[in-house]
Amino acid sequence: MRIRHLILSGAMVAAPLMLAPPAQAEEGMWTFDNFPTAKMQGEYGWAPDQQWLDRTRAAAVRLTGGCSASFVSPEGLILTNHHCVVDCLQNLSTASRDLVDNGFNPSGRQEELMCPGQQAEVVTQITDVTNQVKQAIGTLSGEALIDARNAIISQLESTGCEDGNIRCQVVSLFGGGQYKLYRYRKYSDVRLAWAPEFQAAFFGGDPDNFNYPRYALDASFLRAYDNGRPAATPDHLRWNPRAPQPGEITFVVGNPGSTSRLYTQAQVDFDRDVRLPVAIATMSELRGRLIALGETDAEKAREAKDTLFGLENRLKVFLARQRALNDAAFTGRLDAGEQDLRQRSAADSANDPWTEIDQSMRAYRDLYLPYEFIEPSGELYGYAQTLVRAAEERSQPNAQRLPGYTDSALPLLEKNLLDQKPIHPWLEKEQLSWSLAKAREYLGTDDADTKLLLGRESPEALADRLVSGTRLADPAYRRSLWQGGLEAIRASDDPMIRYALRLDQRQRDLRKQINQRVEGPVAAAQTRLSDARFAAYGDTIYPDATFTLRISYGQVRGWQERGRTLDPVTTIGGAFERATGSEPYNLAAAFLSNERTIDKSTVYDFVSTNDIIGGNSGSPVIARDGSVIGAAFDGNIHSIGGNYGYDPELNRTVSVSAAAIQEALTKIYPAPRLVRELAQR
Amino acid sequence: MRIRHLILSGAMVAAPLMLAPPAQAEEGMWTFDNFPTAKMQGEYGWAPDQQWLDRTRAAAVRLTGGCSASFVSPEGLILTNHHCVVDCLQNLSTASRDLVDNGFNPSGRQEELMCPGQQAEVVTQITDVTNQVKQAIGTLSGEALIDARNAIISQLESTGCEDGNIRCQVVSLFGGGQYKLYRYRKYSDVRLAWAPEFQAAFFGGDPDNFNYPRYALDASFLRAYDNGRPAATPDHLRWNPRAPQPGEITFVVGNPGSTSRLYTQAQVDFDRDVRLPVAIATMSELRGRLIALGETDAEKAREAKDTLFGLENRLKVFLARQRALNDAAFTGRLDAGEQDLRQRSAADSANDPWTEIDQSMRAYRDLYLPYEFIEPSGELYGYAQTLVRAAEERSQPNAQRLPGYTDSALPLLEKNLLDQKPIHPWLEKEQLSWSLAKAREYLGTDDADTKLLLGRESPEALADRLVSGTRLADPAYRRSLWQGGLEAIRASDDPMIRYALRLDQRQRDLRKQINQRVEGPVAAAQTRLSDARFAAYGDTIYPDATFTLRISYGQVRGWQERGRTLDPVTTIGGAFERATGSEPYNLAAAFLSNERTIDKSTVYDFVSTNDIIGGNSGSPVIARDGSVIGAAFDGNIHSIGGNYGYDPELNRTVSVSAAAIQEALTKIYPAPRLVRELAQR
Repeated sequence: MRIRHLILSGAMVAAPLMLAPPAQAEEGMWTFDNFPTAKMQGEYGWAPDQQWLDRTRAAAVRLTGGCSASFVSPEGLILTNHHCVVDCLQNLSTASRDLVDNGFNPSGRQEELMCPGQQAEVVTQITDVTNQVKQAIGTLSGEALIDARNAIISQLESTGCEDGNIRCQVVSLFGGGQYKLYRYRKYSDVRLAWAPEFQAAFFGGDPDNFNYPRYALDASFLRAYDNGRPAATPDHLRWNPRAPQPGEITFVVGNPGSTSRLYTQAQVDFDRDVRLPVAIATMSELRGRLIALGETDAEKAREAKDTLFGLENRLKVFLARQRALNDAAFTGRLDAGEQDLRQRSAADSANDPWTEIDQSMRAYRDLYLPYEFIEPSGELYGYAQTLVRAAEERSQPNAQRLPGYTDSALPLLEKNLLDQKPIHPWLEKEQLSWSLAKAREYLGTDDADTKLLLGRESPEALADRLVSGTRLADPAYRRSLWQGGLEAIRASDDPMIRYALRLDQRQRDLRKQINQRVEGPVAAAQTRLSDARFAAYGDTIYPDATFTLRISYGQVRGWQERGRTLDPVTTIGGAFERATGSEPYNLAAAFLSNERTIDKSTVYDFVSTNDIIGGNSGSPVIARDGSVIGAAFDGNIHSIGGNYGYDPELNRTVSVSAAAIQEALTKIYPAPRLVRELAQR
Repeated sequence: MRIRHLILSGAMVAAPLMLAPPAQAEEGMWTFDNFPTAKMQGEYGWAPDQQWLDRTRAAAVRLTGGCSASFVSPEGLILTNHHCVVDCLQNLSTASRDLVDNGFNPSGRQEELMCPGQQAEVVTQITDVTNQVKQAIGTLSGEALIDARNAIISQLESTGCEDGNIRCQVVSLFGGGQYKLYRYRKYSDVRLAWAPEFQAAFFGGDPDNFNYPRYALDASFLRAYDNGRPAATPDHLRWNPRAPQPGEITFVVGNPGSTSRLYTQAQVDFDRDVRLPVAIATMSELRGRLIALGETDAEKAREAKDTLFGLENRLKVFLARQRALNDAAFTGRLDAGEQDLRQRSAADSANDPWTEIDQSMRAYRDLYLPYEFIEPSGELYGYAQTLVRAAEERSQPNAQRLPGYTDSALPLLEKNLLDQKPIHPWLEKEQLSWSLAKAREYLGTDDADTKLLLGRESPEALADRLVSGTRLADPAYRRSLWQGGLEAIRASDDPMIRYALRLDQRQRDLRKQINQRVEGPVAAAQTRLSDARFAAYGDTIYPDATFTLRISYGQVRGWQERGRTLDPVTTIGGAFERATGSEPYNLAAAFLSNERTIDKSTVYDFVSTNDIIGGNSGSPVIARDGSVIGAAFDGNIHSIGGNYGYDPELNRTVSVSAAAIQEALTKIYPAPRLVRELAQR
């Protein structure tokens, strides 16, 4: 299955739109070029000025693995979450050196280790390119619309962005109402500088994930390098290890991945009826497989830790979304928003974009299962697919390539493909055979796509043959195929490459059908919906999340849950009280051994009303004076429904305080070098 | 979790009601005392007479494991499905003698083996007791209604049923509109007489389950014994190993387990929003655990085969129900039925039973998760719970006991508890720790029920301690506690018994709340709905399924699927064509070794329009002349939505033909003794 698609499920088909009624209270993931100054001024009696915004933006970091972060020293030091570096820790670990469990605390910079596949990016410029894109699209529809849009985007992203340190990216906002060209300074050499033990970062494990009160040291430090030396980052945030104060203003600056707040009813119904049920049932089974295998073999448990962690995290998101969409009170509010816009826009337009989206969603119901299941899972299959597709696409002119294979995208693609990472054959077989078995289950044994996927082999036998026979675990072999291009691919007798070639044409056909029958019509309808929304609500609206830089304002505040008021802060002492000694409520070794010196009254985690979503992980929590007082690492369980709509009474961001991180840096996982670096201005 | 409840999910809270509009075409699971003679006569120009019905009923067998069957010889020989005896095969297997994989074909009767826990039951009398029950209930409501109903039922079931060969059972039909006392002749010694290889019975495995065309020899024979000798069964069906003919009339006689066709919208919404999502996510995880453990260890795969088989079967049912309820066209038809009855009954009553059921379902949404998760999973915990509860209940007067612990229920309970069965500690630990982990996930770590379930232990550590420490795997120990009663239970230091005692009071409290806030009000409202339905539709209606004897009429007929017409019959040769050699499409060994002699043109499986549901497995398919021409073993995928509503165009019963079974008995798994026995009249 398309695990990657499942992660950012909202982004796959429908480029997000904008909010139904104007944003209220702390709601909103605002772009830096449209901060709602007057609105915040009205609500809080204060709002940041342009200089504040510019300075903050220059220190905000996007991590290409799907997280957010910030520079916190002039020498490239980056604050983010532990869970944003756990894949790096996993990739750098061996059976005899488990950096996930034990953490990582190098004695000097020379010991900082490069994270495979990781890249840090800072926005340096935002340019409006709406006119260019809209002119290129003209009155096209369906697949032609998508092709024309891809072509102009690939052209805009490559012009003037040839410098190896620059990445350009066109972002579609308001469902095609606006297009912006984001220019990034990128750092492709990102190294691990400090990480606590997993059990400190993820105390309470999956049961506490998305819950609160919380006691997690979900923080770590990376460092950006430039030509082998720490990058110079004069634009950075001031480290401020003080306790957050109830009621104080907080900003969260980061890259929310995807929201679906502007979905029409038909799109929401599709999620509820099709996407979420399929994802939840299949992912739950994989979860069970990995849990059971980990129980029988400690080394397998170690090797699969990051995979299981990510899977359980996504699954919990999907389960909470399903609950939200099966709650009539919640969906009633979404309906009301849609009805409001329909009424306001009834006179404006003879078109009915809602009906067009309805029709597209009906087509999507027919296409969805083959489109999902035609892509098997696993790192090795992913390498093969990337190599096959990149070879084909690179032989085409830039403007005609699939998104993800344009000149602007190739450097990161290449880095991800060629960086060395450990591959565990048992885990590859398990994921591949699972995804093939699920394809057969959902498509049926007699389905043509099932036959293409399996031939006369069983999922288990096919997975075993491909994983055992491929050489793609070797980066040198991947490099030779990457450099050899189409000729090398066609000449390869690697079974995984042959398998990716076998599936390639059908995958492209399905992509074309999706463009023609779903993505194209939805894009056209959303543009009209976008116009209707602007006409109805003016510029009091913000675009759905797109894993690009946003700013949310709010305040440190608890909430009411079943008659109980939740305190906005916890203390480190609370972790000692909550610990039972049994997993996942066992304290990390360094917490136990340093219990006497730790200041248990230190504020540990805290909640604020900031509006966030997955992708915001690692975002700095910034005080009114521009300093960092924490790192956002989670939302409460209500915030997951925030994919579809924000509720200011219930939705909360959960962050680890800079004060707790400082306590860890001084007493639990001592890093005096980093403490000094953070203290300098 | 309450796996048992999940099986017959419709039956747990809402005693089923009756059908909305009058039954059309082949729809209907009719009771033998209300066969729709005129209706069938009108549709088919023929209908069975009373003698035909009486003779058939006398040969129909209910298997207490949840299946149906029939006597097919005067010496107690019983035809049923292979999948109805797979748990028996599993219980009689060892690492060195795998009856599941290899089948069972004794050379003489003296080698037939008793199935643990199995009991066969034949209806001998049906008495209307509606007046007695309704008088006892009077105008009571809530918990008092349930208590009074339980009391009168336990009294009716024990009066005049003292004979050790008799079982009496009061059945609530039409949601309390009718109560009938069913009197059964029971056979507690049921032995295995013949079973093919698993791979013959379940060719195509889970992927083909509920699908068609189908190539499965899902048949086996049991034998009822009386005082250690084959039971005399002069009332039996004639074995008729001929091919079914397209268009011919077929009857299916058996015990459909549970349907929910008369649910109100609020009850259907509850299934869609709460029950199915929770069941699917949790069961999928357990499925993954068992699949993965089986992959790593062939002996574990063998030991868990029946558990995994049952789990996947239920899961597939739930997934298909979820799809049906997420299909607006399907639910639209259900809505239309409800609207029709509302309109017809608007003038008749000032009450609104729909609103009352709405309110009960809202209460159920609050109670459901604790009620489900307060009962951990596993055979050993099940033994402990039964022992603890039975000791307590047996010390109460019969009329005040919980259902399931009355005098009429105790003999089968005792048999199930004390029969020897293999226990696999690893499987017990897996199921128990899984159910405890899911309880924590759904209830939350800080929930009082989670704390009651876990204390300060982890799910894994607790499961390990209880399973490793208990002696309940030993039938002699179970017998000593059963005989020792409450005193022995209280004195026991067995950790599983202590654990069951710890949970008992809270389980009872939740049961009381369910009775008070859900089951009681729903029962009262359903009785009124039942009256409204009778008033609107007269006696053209049949009751929802209750795992009691029903008869369905229909005909051998294929259906249209995506423009393709499906033939109503398959042949044994088709299995050879479908086989790939890879699991689960590998042919059974005996099929391969006997390929040259097998008549491949023999009709293998066939479909008919009979209206069935889970519980009907093993039902005889009976021709117009009263002979058996097959055994129903499955429904097609559409038939699963039949839980909520029957569609004559799409819903089909899938059966294995008597002709194919005869071919197997003569050439594949030769049993000349049985062939002779079946041929005699």
